[in-house]
Amino acid sequence: MRITDEIARRRAGGHDVVSLCAGEPSARAIPGTLKPAGYTGPLGTAPLREAVAGHYREWYDVEIDPATVAITTGSSGAFQLAFLAAFDPGDRVALASPGYPAYRNILTALGVHVVEIPTGPENRYQPTPALLDAAVAEHGDLAGLVIASPANPTGTMLDRAALTALVAWCSLRGVRLVSDEIYHGITFAGDGADHRGVTARELDAEAIVVNSFSKYWGMTGWRLGWAILPDALVGPFEALASNFALSPPAPAQELALSAFSPETYAERDAIVAGFARARQLILDAESSLGWGVAAPSDGAFYYYSELGPQLERFTDSVEYARRLLADADVAVVPGVDFDPVDGSRAVRLSYAAGETAVAEALDRIIRFQG
Amino acid sequence: MRITDEIARRRAGGHDVVSLCAGEPSARAIPGTLKPAGYTGPLGTAPLREAVAGHYREWYDVEIDPATVAITTGSSGAFQLAFLAAFDPGDRVALASPGYPAYRNILTALGVHVVEIPTGPENRYQPTPALLDAAVAEHGDLAGLVIASPANPTGTMLDRAALTALVAWCSLRGVRLVSDEIYHGITFAGDGADHRGVTARELDAEAIVVNSFSKYWGMTGWRLGWAILPDALVGPFEALASNFALSPPAPAQELALSAFSPETYAERDAIVAGFARARQLILDAESSLGWGVAAPSDGAFYYYSELGPQLERFTDSVEYARRLLADADVAVVPGVDFDPVDGSRAVRLSYAAGETAVAEALDRIIRFQG
Repeated sequence: MRITDEIARRRAGGHDVVSLCAGEPSARAIPGTLKPAGYTGPLGTAPLREAVAGHYREWYDVEIDPATVAITTGSSGAFQLAFLAAFDPGDRVALASPGYPAYRNILTALGVHVVEIPTGPENRYQPTPALLDAAVAEHGDLAGLVIASPANPTGTMLDRAALTALVAWCSLRGVRLVSDEIYHGITFAGDGADHRGVTARELDAEAIVVNSFSKYWGMTGWRLGWAILPDALVGPFEALASNFALSPPAPAQELALSAFSPETYAERDAIVAGFARARQLILDAESSLGWGVAAPSDGAFYYYSELGPQLERFTDSVEYARRLLADADVAVVPGVDFDPVDGSRAVRLSYAAGETAVAEALDRIIRFQG
Repeated sequence: MRITDEIARRRAGGHDVVSLCAGEPSARAIPGTLKPAGYTGPLGTAPLREAVAGHYREWYDVEIDPATVAITTGSSGAFQLAFLAAFDPGDRVALASPGYPAYRNILTALGVHVVEIPTGPENRYQPTPALLDAAVAEHGDLAGLVIASPANPTGTMLDRAALTALVAWCSLRGVRLVSDEIYHGITFAGDGADHRGVTARELDAEAIVVNSFSKYWGMTGWRLGWAILPDALVGPFEALASNFALSPPAPAQELALSAFSPETYAERDAIVAGFARARQLILDAESSLGWGVAAPSDGAFYYYSELGPQLERFTDSVEYARRLLADADVAVVPGVDFDPVDGSRAVRLSYAAGETAVAEALDRIIRFQG
């Protein structure tokens, strides 16, 4: 969060900072009809759990038992409870690197050993059975694998074939798959029926699927997400939820009831169309930027790229980001936040800020680089 | 949560159930002026952290640095992060029994060993230095002590002298004190300046104080609380918060900004006065109830009593509660939820349901007992 402090400091000093840091779309309004509410059940209200099951029919043509839907305090709440329910201290759990740092940090805080799977352009920045075999050969058997599609920071997705291969690898070895699908619906790749993303739940009844109202639905500050649980984990997850969280936020659950209407899908798809235009601005500017290899930006609102020739002028991505903010008032996230090793050569741009901000930022970056 | 299922089932079947189970006051309304909000900092917004510090000046005449205030997702969010920040797996942490079961369950899930301190009427259901000495002699050195005043399920409070003795015991031995103060303000004992409760923060800068907007302020479903942290734990707590929670709920933080106005204090004190009347109804009915020893009901909205002679007719408190619900449609919580051993003889009544519900419940209980 250091970079956000620096952005705030510069803005307070009168600087017009364009931030491409935050993974946060525009927020949903608070309707005047929202009613006060007390605690709900630890897994959320019955109507919302049913509505989530309905969303799986609508988007994925998959039947989900509402009893296996756990409403959680954001996807953060889902991850901590899922990791507690599924893994024990000393277990080994694999994650792609670069990846979302909270997976690693939560698991480590719970005494679980994290096995980093180094990924790159040659495997579309996603784990593969071959990479997992290599990890097992080096570190020993795995208890779990956490995947994300679209992923943060890269935005790359697993298509049906790639996800099926990972599911098969995990099933054969009794490895618990945890699938982060919080960026589903913010997708620019994937064809036909799979264009929202492929849910692991369709392929593996033993997978834990995590999702959120924050990203596609723009409800970040409300802290509301959900998990789809394998039958055997519902009881343990509920017991943990009643002790660790008591109840997910109640006003947020009421607001979320309207998330799955045709009107809300249409409203949010219009926002995704705006992300698509902002994304295109970056892709069109690639030759002017003159950076190195970029990850396939299939979804989410992230563009992750090696800095390439820029590293002849700047020590590393941290120095690049520091100078870009100081000299051009543009904030980007250095890759080291997602990959302590190779991240020193890459940056993440979030285009959630929208077309105007992205256009202005690109102009400034190109001028800054001279 | 089994009892709530049974209450719901009976109500669905047309029964007029009076529940004295829930620890939940009436909810605050959602004002139409509430604005949408995105993520806040992991420790909450600066204005709310400052407002919480102001509350400590107002109620306790204690100066708190707002930088040591962490806004959390309910007190649940504060406890899990505090336990992670302060304790390591294998540590021993002491708790009073009977006590709030989530302390024990969260600590156990995190690999911390829980040392139960058996309490009863002879020590006002609160730990004492002598009880702690005995616990150390039996189990070994402690890393922490969790106290609650007013406590759940008993409602008993630690007065200034009792709290000072516990602070001194902990300080001398380097034992981290975690003080649950979520029922402060819902108090019917304590004199003069201490009538809201005595905060451990006034006596011990190394204590972790946990509080909540749920109880006195009636914001249960919003999931908002706070911790006051020792300086050295602010950094670790913030790092854990940014990974485990990302941000406390934002609309709740905005609503909570008005919690510390003279108008809101007056509004909530009027609600506490209603709890006082409901409590008096129970105390006045003690001889008609003909139960055994009751804990001093100093605060919160709980009355915890041995069933005494009733145990000649009913096997234990679980059987008593089951029959009371089945035959008289009154729901109370059997003590085993708070004390697996001696709780078989006791029940907890919550009078948060208010005077009318409590009066009706008492009539039915007395008729049920014949």
